[in-house]
Parts: sequence; structure tokens; C-alpha cells
Amino acid sequence: MTAENPQVTAELARFVANTTYDDLPPEVVRETKRSLLNWMGVAIGAAWHESVDILLKLSEEVGGTAKVGIYGRRERVDPLEGALINGMSSHIFDFDDTHLRTVIHPSAPIAPAVLSVAEWKGGSAKDVITAFAVGVEACLRIGNSVYPDHYNVGWHITGTTGVFGSAIATSKMLGHDEQAIRYAIGLAAAQPTGIREMFGTMTKPFHPGKAAMDGLRSALIAGWGFTSSEQGIEATRGFANVLSTKFDPTEITGTLGKEWELLKNAYKPYPCGVVIHPVIDAALGLREKGVTPDNVESITAYVHPLVQELTGKRTPRTGLEGKFSVFHCMGAAIVEGKVGEAQFSDDHVRDEAIIAVRDKTDIAVTEGIREDECRIEAKLTDGSTVEHYVEFASGSIDNPLTDEQLDAKFNDLVIPVLGDQHARDLIQILRNLENEANVKKLIKAATM
Amino acid sequence: MTAENPQVTAELARFVANTTYDDLPPEVVRETKRSLLNWMGVAIGAAWHESVDILLKLSEEVGGTAKVGIYGRRERVDPLEGALINGMSSHIFDFDDTHLRTVIHPSAPIAPAVLSVAEWKGGSAKDVITAFAVGVEACLRIGNSVYPDHYNVGWHITGTTGVFGSAIATSKMLGHDEQAIRYAIGLAAAQPTGIREMFGTMTKPFHPGKAAMDGLRSALIAGWGFTSSEQGIEATRGFANVLSTKFDPTEITGTLGKEWELLKNAYKPYPCGVVIHPVIDAALGLREKGVTPDNVESITAYVHPLVQELTGKRTPRTGLEGKFSVFHCMGAAIVEGKVGEAQFSDDHVRDEAIIAVRDKTDIAVTEGIREDECRIEAKLTDGSTVEHYVEFASGSIDNPLTDEQLDAKFNDLVIPVLGDQHARDLIQILRNLENEANVKKLIKAATM
Repeated sequence: MTAENPQVTAELARFVANTTYDDLPPEVVRETKRSLLNWMGVAIGAAWHESVDILLKLSEEVGGTAKVGIYGRRERVDPLEGALINGMSSHIFDFDDTHLRTVIHPSAPIAPAVLSVAEWKGGSAKDVITAFAVGVEACLRIGNSVYPDHYNVGWHITGTTGVFGSAIATSKMLGHDEQAIRYAIGLAAAQPTGIREMFGTMTKPFHPGKAAMDGLRSALIAGWGFTSSEQGIEATRGFANVLSTKFDPTEITGTLGKEWELLKNAYKPYPCGVVIHPVIDAALGLREKGVTPDNVESITAYVHPLVQELTGKRTPRTGLEGKFSVFHCMGAAIVEGKVGEAQFSDDHVRDEAIIAVRDKTDIAVTEGIREDECRIEAKLTDGSTVEHYVEFASGSIDNPLTDEQLDAKFNDLVIPVLGDQHARDLIQILRNLENEANVKKLIKAATM
Repeated sequence: MTAENPQVTAELARFVANTTYDDLPPEVVRETKRSLLNWMGVAIGAAWHESVDILLKLSEEVGGTAKVGIYGRRERVDPLEGALINGMSSHIFDFDDTHLRTVIHPSAPIAPAVLSVAEWKGGSAKDVITAFAVGVEACLRIGNSVYPDHYNVGWHITGTTGVFGSAIATSKMLGHDEQAIRYAIGLAAAQPTGIREMFGTMTKPFHPGKAAMDGLRSALIAGWGFTSSEQGIEATRGFANVLSTKFDPTEITGTLGKEWELLKNAYKPYPCGVVIHPVIDAALGLREKGVTPDNVESITAYVHPLVQELTGKRTPRTGLEGKFSVFHCMGAAIVEGKVGEAQFSDDHVRDEAIIAVRDKTDIAVTEGIREDECRIEAKLTDGSTVEHYVEFASGSIDNPLTDEQLDAKFNDLVIPVLGDQHARDLIQILRNLENEANVKKLIKAATM
């Protein structure tokens, strides 16, 4: 082990896997038993505390007959797990919505929690809209208050702020008063999920799912009197100061209820990190101008530093890793003229034709290029040059997806899983959601 | 709202409680529906991903007929909730064990998770001892690697390192190979629970319970192939670098398996924060030397800075707050000659006699006084002075609780809940744990 490359996780895993009872020194066995004796005593001593009653009530309520649907499937699970699973699945393709300023994906941790409550306990679709809107608003504003320091240090901000969004949105669904909401916020502050090291693994989409579940649990128990700090966000040892070097509280409370950060939510046209989108637009632009796998010699994209930092994987080995490779995205755009979920299959990432183009692409981190902007340049084998400029990436604030584009994206995703009729029903219901008395028709259309 | 005292949590709670559907601008309703449509599409699109299958398997396994006991009670809950509730209850009295160097309470997040697995899936008591020992070892070493910076910034280190302990100990119980253990560690790294702002509320003991549950869930799904980073602890954006300014990996891997940090685990004689213990010893020492509520004029304890920082509450209003008041502890010691759970009831905290003495006590933060040391001085009404010096607090490494003291503490806690016979059985089983074929007798004795 060197200081530069300490393999502590691997070494620890090896120790754990290899250690047997007979390897334990007698004094370790003795101290283990003393620890367990001492621990069991305090556990039993406090077993009738009010907080234990509250968690048992939770167990009884969610673990009993309450079940909610998993969208796209036929299984039914308890409402907490429903929030976890539906939240995770919606982030698996990296294709959900994005608050561009903070790179928060607000729906994944919030929508499944709200719908879990709505399906489980009832509530009108107007309640759902209201709960979602205030939850997203809170989540994004908390994100703004700590961005960029909080993100830069390595937090996956979707999980860490999403748990607030879920706790707040579900508190609203449950009709909580201000004190219960403050408690729920306190509980959320103590349960941040998500660090950026997990990008490229199943644990990344797990983050918003976990945030949805933890936020919902927080709201439920806070409503039954489970106490927490009432200054969970702003206290000296609260969320903002512990998890960020920057904290600007006016981002949360200034213009609250007057201006809506939710209106800055954007939808991805491509199922990968939003920072690659202008590059994909640019590469598709080159293709339209006649650049092909056969005539291209090299491609250089002039990009914002985050493109390199987040998506600089040179040789992705799996489809999932392809989402973190701007080079694969350019290769796929030139070869196939499309960058959809299909282009992120393992087969596509290993496709010889795509790899051949991929290895001719490069990026140049360029001062002054915005995150939603890209300039690209191809040198062709005949010595000529083709350029393309993307001022605003499709799906950005200044070039948002139209309703028709959003419907097309929805159909691409839903029809292969649930078929035409379900997709049509869902678009119809969601576009006119405020008119639904409850979410029954919605859940029916969303599940098998 | 002022910059010095921003009431952002309260303001946010008020906004959430008061906002109705009719307050939402039409464009907010529209964007909410677009968000939900977009989100539902991606959720359905990914609904058959392998990770969804794994979480559904988890739901089926733990949400089905699997139930474990709540110690001290008769309810039975699913194994994840068992870890949460038993983990929380054991930390409610602030009376569990303490690794004095890091202030980690290792049993609370680890023991309930290990016993959940043992009760649910079987396994010998030797397996329990081994799993507990390696889990505690990993937890404490990870704590050492980031202490004190990680704690100082505001993390409740018992929760944030406890989730590793639980994930690792339960991985061991489940017989995982090295890769599954690395994945479980990665999942744990992404789920730190606990910030110090929550001290004095129900959320504090919730932290180790949550860590127990999250660690167990991590181990279960990692064993079924749920992927995560394999450098969750040491990576640039892994646990240590995101949650701490200090990281010394040799604390984790140096002497691993040769020296056992677990042997530095200590047991509290008093049900409150360990930093107050030398002060309580000292105050009890004064009482033995003749200081009484009637003859005392003032008391000054010379203490380590953490006493002030963690337990400086001047006027506690509840029993729970009393645990964070060194002044209440001194008052109770002088008046009642004992500082047990009874002295932290709401009634005791509001007791006129205790308050009268409490208000005569003070602390002086003193350079060079160790955390387990205290010098105390009482001025009496007759003008004389009584001093007492505690070199090593009872329950500290240099003055550990004997087995007899540990049994006495156990009986004090358990007999009022389960009666004499259960307490005797439990001590007998736990003292000879390695001889048990499984945990059946243990769980039977620990529950009603």
C-alpha cells in the first residue's frame, strides 16, 4: 500500500473475508461478549421509549397490508420500498430531469415518494401537484444555497438535497403542520445519501431512491411526534455547515413562493449526463454536414471543464460506463446518428465501428465555453475541415424540449415496456393531472 | 431573517404548510406535470433493470414472513426494521459502549444488524462473535482514519462509521466473498447518517439504528450483485475525502488483524455522554467527603474543552436535555449520590433541590486536562474548601468497568423490563456465547 494509492477498501474486505473465529485472540472474544452484554442491557432498558413506539407504528403501517405499485411492472411492495425502487429506476438511464444550475435531478427523489403516499393513503391529484411543487422548490433552493462547494467536494447533490425534497413533499401530502415539517427537515438533514465516487455503478441511481425512501420515513415519523432539530439546515452543526463550505440562506428564503426555481427544471434529450448534451448535439450536427466514419480523420470538441471531469472515460467497458464517456457519445453520434438508450448497451460500447470513430475524437477544455455550449471541429481525410456550433444544447433552459419532444421521449421509453395503450393513457392522465380525483387511474396505467 | 440567525428551516416549513394548490402559478402546475411525465417515462423505461430485480428480491425476502424480535418487547418486525429499532433503542439512554479515542459507540449500529441476520437466517454464536469483532474493528479503524477532523466538522461519527461496521459485520454473517464486501463497503460509504446538531433529540439515537439498517441492506444487496465503487473509502470522491479533511489510511490497514482496536472499547457507568463521566465521579467524590446541598456554596470543575462544547446546557428542560448538562449531573450527584437513568427523568431535571445545587456549579475549561480526567473544588458556606481529583474516570481504558460492575449495570437496566429470570439467563448466555449453537435461546431471553 502506498500513500498515493492506498487500497484500504480492498485490504479491509480481504481481512473481513478471511478472518475466522479461530483467528480471534481470546481477549477479543471476551471483549466482544462484554460489548454484547452491555449493549443488550441498554437496548432492553430503553425498549419502551416513545421513539421505539413510533418506529413500531411505522413498521406496522408500512409492513402490513399497505402496498404500492412498481411502475412498468406488476410487483407491489410496501410504500417505503416503492419510493426506493421507483426512485432508483427513474435515474438508472441518467435520462431524468435536471436543474441545470445545480445538476440536481429533482423528480427522482421526490415524485415516487409523493405517489407512494397518494396511492397508499389517498389524496387528490391536486394534492400531488402541490406536494411535488413545494418539495421540488425546497430541494432546489437548498441545493442553490450550498452549490457549488457542496457538489465540488464530492456529494451527489441529487441524493443529499433530494431527501429534503422527499421529506417536505410527503409532509405536505400528509397534511403536516409547521412543527412536524421542521422535524421532518431535521431528520432529512441527518440522512444525506450520495457521493460522486459511485457514478458509473448501480449505487448512483440508488442515491435518489434512497433519498425518496428516507424522506418519506422522516415525514411519517415526524408526523407522529418523532423529534429532531428544528434548525436542521442552518444550525452550526446542521446540514449546510457540515456538508458545505458555502451556505447562502437567502437562496432558500429569498423570493420563496414568489419566484419558482422549479421553472428552471429541464429534460434530457439523451440518456446520459447533461454536460455531454451540447457535445452530442454538435457531433450530430457534424454528421448532418456530411461527416461519416469513412471520411473522418479527427474530431475535437471545445468544451466546459465539467465535460472532462465527469465524462472523460476514454475506454468504457460497459454500456453504463459509456454514459460517462464523451468520446463514446461522439462515436455513436457519428456512426448511428442517434444517441438513445440503445447506444448505451454493452454491445454498442464494444462495437468496432463506434470504437474506431471514438478513438479519433478528443476534447479541449476551453475557457469561456458555457456548460450548455459546444464548438466542434472535424478534420477529414481529404484535408478539409467541418465545423459546427451549438449555442444552447437541446433540453437546456434556452432551448427546452417542446411538449411534442417530451411525448416522443416518453413513448420511446414506455411503449417497449407497457405498450401503446398504457403510454397513451399515461400522457393523457399526466397532461391533465389536476382533473383527476385521485391517482388510481394513473397507477393503473403505470403498472402491468 | 438576519445573516447571523437565519431561520431558514422555520421559514421553509411555514411556506410548505401554507402553500395550497391555488397558490401555484399556472406555469408551475404545467412544469410539475411535464416533470412527472418525463419522470414516469424514465422510471418505466428502466423498470426491468437488474438493480430493480435485486431490490424487489430484498423486498420479498425481508417483507415476507421474515421477522425478528425487538429486545425487551414482544413485537416482531422485518429484519431491516429490527436492526433500526434495536439499534436506536440501545443508544436512547446514551449509556452504551464508547471507543474513547473517537467517541464512536460501536455496538449500537453493529450488534443489532448482526443479530438480525443470525435470528433470520441462522448461524452459530461463534459466527456472531466473529462478525461483530471484524465489523467493530473496521468501524473503529475507519473512525481513527478520519478523526478528529470528521467529528469536529459536525458528523455524528457513530452513525457515519457505524454503517460501515454494520455492512461489514453482516457481510461476514452472510459469508460474502471479497468483492461483495467491497461493494457493501461502497454502498455504506454513500449512506452516512448523523450530524451533531441532532444531539438532544430522538434523531440522535436514530442515527446508529439507521446505520444498522442501511448497513444490513447494503450487505444483502451487495451479496446479490448490486454494484458499487470498490474504493468507497479511499477514492478521491469517496467517504474519507468527502466527509473529512484528514484521512490517514494506515489507521485502517496498519496492524490489521494483529492489534485489535476493539479492545479499547469501554462501557459507561452513567447513562450520559462520556465526557461528563469524570465530572460525575468527581462530584460523587465531593459528596463522599461531606459536601451536601445544605453546606455547599459553589462548585467548580476543571475540565477538558469537550465538556463545555458537548454538555454545556445550563438549564435543561427535559430529562433528555439533562444528559447534555454537566451542571445537572453535578447537581444530581450531590443531591442524590447517584447518576442513573432515574436522574435523567423530566421530574429530576425540574426538581427544586437539584436545580438549587445545579445553579451553584460551574466549569472551567483547563489546558492540559484530559478527557477522562477531572479536578473539582467546592467552597462551603463556612468558608472552607473541599477538593477531589479523578485521575481516570470509571469506565475509562485505565479504569475499566469490572465484569461485576457490568453485570450490575445490566441488571439495573434489564430487570425492570424483563424481570430477574430473563436478566440471569441473558448474562449466562452472553458470558458463554461461543458455546451456543445458534441465537435462539439468546433472542428468547431478550424478548417477552
